[in-house]
Amino acid sequence: MHIVVQKYGGTSVGSTERILNVAKRIIAKKNSGHQIVVVVSAMGKTTDELVKLAYAINPAPSKRELDRLLSTGEQISISLLSMALQSLGYDAISFTGPQVGIRTSGRHTKSRIAGIDTTKILESLNAEKIVIIAGFQGVNENDDVTTLGRGGSDTSAVALACVLDAPCEIYTDVEGIYGVDPRLYSKAKKLDAVSYEEMLEMASLGAGVMHPRAIELASKYETPIWVASSEFELPGTIIKKGEKSMEGQSITGVAIDNDEIMITIRDIPFDTNITSQFFSQFATKSINIDMISQSAPIDGLINISFTAPASDLDDAKKILTTFHEKHPGIGVIIDENISKLSVVGIGMRSQSGVAAKFFQLLADNNIQMLMITTSEIRISCIIPSVDKDIAVTATAEAFEL
Amino acid sequence: MHIVVQKYGGTSVGSTERILNVAKRIIAKKNSGHQIVVVVSAMGKTTDELVKLAYAINPAPSKRELDRLLSTGEQISISLLSMALQSLGYDAISFTGPQVGIRTSGRHTKSRIAGIDTTKILESLNAEKIVIIAGFQGVNENDDVTTLGRGGSDTSAVALACVLDAPCEIYTDVEGIYGVDPRLYSKAKKLDAVSYEEMLEMASLGAGVMHPRAIELASKYETPIWVASSEFELPGTIIKKGEKSMEGQSITGVAIDNDEIMITIRDIPFDTNITSQFFSQFATKSINIDMISQSAPIDGLINISFTAPASDLDDAKKILTTFHEKHPGIGVIIDENISKLSVVGIGMRSQSGVAAKFFQLLADNNIQMLMITTSEIRISCIIPSVDKDIAVTATAEAFEL
Repeated sequence: MHIVVQKYGGTSVGSTERILNVAKRIIAKKNSGHQIVVVVSAMGKTTDELVKLAYAINPAPSKRELDRLLSTGEQISISLLSMALQSLGYDAISFTGPQVGIRTSGRHTKSRIAGIDTTKILESLNAEKIVIIAGFQGVNENDDVTTLGRGGSDTSAVALACVLDAPCEIYTDVEGIYGVDPRLYSKAKKLDAVSYEEMLEMASLGAGVMHPRAIELASKYETPIWVASSEFELPGTIIKKGEKSMEGQSITGVAIDNDEIMITIRDIPFDTNITSQFFSQFATKSINIDMISQSAPIDGLINISFTAPASDLDDAKKILTTFHEKHPGIGVIIDENISKLSVVGIGMRSQSGVAAKFFQLLADNNIQMLMITTSEIRISCIIPSVDKDIAVTATAEAFEL
Repeated sequence: MHIVVQKYGGTSVGSTERILNVAKRIIAKKNSGHQIVVVVSAMGKTTDELVKLAYAINPAPSKRELDRLLSTGEQISISLLSMALQSLGYDAISFTGPQVGIRTSGRHTKSRIAGIDTTKILESLNAEKIVIIAGFQGVNENDDVTTLGRGGSDTSAVALACVLDAPCEIYTDVEGIYGVDPRLYSKAKKLDAVSYEEMLEMASLGAGVMHPRAIELASKYETPIWVASSEFELPGTIIKKGEKSMEGQSITGVAIDNDEIMITIRDIPFDTNITSQFFSQFATKSINIDMISQSAPIDGLINISFTAPASDLDDAKKILTTFHEKHPGIGVIIDENISKLSVVGIGMRSQSGVAAKFFQLLADNNIQMLMITTSEIRISCIIPSVDKDIAVTATAEAFEL
């Protein structure tokens, strides 16, 4: 008897009818000879509504209290899913994160899983029960409930699969993982398989299907993850260990991120102390600087361009104003109308000319490359937002995604 | 520094505005030199909505899962109330029932408080924090969350007041306790004080303001309970130990219960075994028999009348059918159109003629007394439902309630 961990997202359990459908899928899997552990998210938009309530009362709510508030959403869905399974004649038992011993470390609202005690889970599985576990939450050293941040239920499911040495099935509202977002490119092809590394790059680039931490964890334990539709019986996509391109292609995916701004500072005195002090202020404010490019010094002055999340614009402006007061000779340009276009693929390692092909197709479409960064399996490029649709389509066609 | 336990009901925390108002009342109490422990119910109709969700999925939901589902309502309100206090500049900390060590025994959905560990509460109070505790819930020996049944938050608050040796203030949507329901008798007077015994009789008779178990507990520990409006600054009613009538009146209150049925069985063979077997079947089905009257035997046959909750009518009919098959000679009459009118008062003990006065005023109004039972401080009488309004008004006027 093999254990399988399944995870159902908020849309999949968004109504009582959908919860009953999910229950039927779980039963089908159990009847095919598996022991089932299910991780569930909060129903539909529950979490968003709770956040709204909190901010109506306190514009800066205590993160401890916020965690308790948000953790109720999953408690509701695990209870209802257990009841659904029971109504269909199957024995099920639900546990909250704290109750099942999902211990976390780190700060409230952004905790990380530190360990899982599998005693209760294994006891219940051995008693022929379907085990339902609240995703997104755990308990810290003070016995307070904590949450893992947005998308944390993926991490809960993968972490459980890792400690139970089981495969993980993530059921969601898409049919699997695409090399390019089907909303952006209607002819997009679903991938049959993708490597942890590629998936991690795509998730970090905003491809959205999976939480990056979940993939990191799966990669460490080499736990296979299936991503598939919760509505249809389709094969989906498997995320697993892969050293070479599984699709025989140079590029596995293209991603576009529209939530960044680009800041350029001209004529900064060339002094490493100045540059490092400048960026350390962003770190202090927890602003996540993404791409950075620095020009070679001319007459003792340099230009620096970097990108940051658009949501941190106000904080960034304050830092820039202070910096300008200290160094009145500099020039500051903030560009909010940029997008980050990235291509990802393990195939890049072995196939040369991918970068050249990518840059050429942008040039052919008259798309300016404002900044470029590369990693071993990724090329990212800042382009004007106005060109993003044509860029995605051209890339997807050229690389046959 | 004295500890005070306050409890706010669902209506009092029914919206973000109301939660902020409650926070202001708590702060006023704290600033008057008290350490405050607050017990809160779920917001407005939350519990009802959760129950509805559960029954939409499973007509007979597991009580363990139901308890977890229902316990989320209070977790939401404690988090929001803490955030409200923090937004007004006061340090507050919230705890769930399980977290603060409210241990329970008995069955899910109907658990009883078995003990409370005050360590965390006293630590937090000594750190100058306002302590917010989820009412209605605790944790059983399996580490599962349990609930105390409807109105259980009153019990949570009183139990906390008892173990903390503090007075208990129950804030609700009425101005205090009335001798007669103001919805039934518009000239009803609010009581300034009422004894535990009287309150217990009235609560059991359906007067509704307070949960009977909460009053039992307060009586045992002699913990004073204030019942007052959560909206207005009015003195309310104190429930405390009292050996004689606090109001100098013979009767403190009148109650009417419309949720009972009266069953009469004629010509039962006079045999104690038959009678006891008959009633033991009601006990087996958990049907709570209330009033019983038995006639003297004539020709070896007796008549028995008794009342039971109207909600148990179906189960009662099954028992009666079986009984009829066994004893074909009997006659069964079920009357669903009856009400139980009760007058309650410690004053009865010392003042004679209360019963006579009560019966006379019913006779004067041509109201039939179908059954009568009395206790030391109560007289109850079954009357036709059609006469209930005139009976309440006549009683309230005659006894100046």
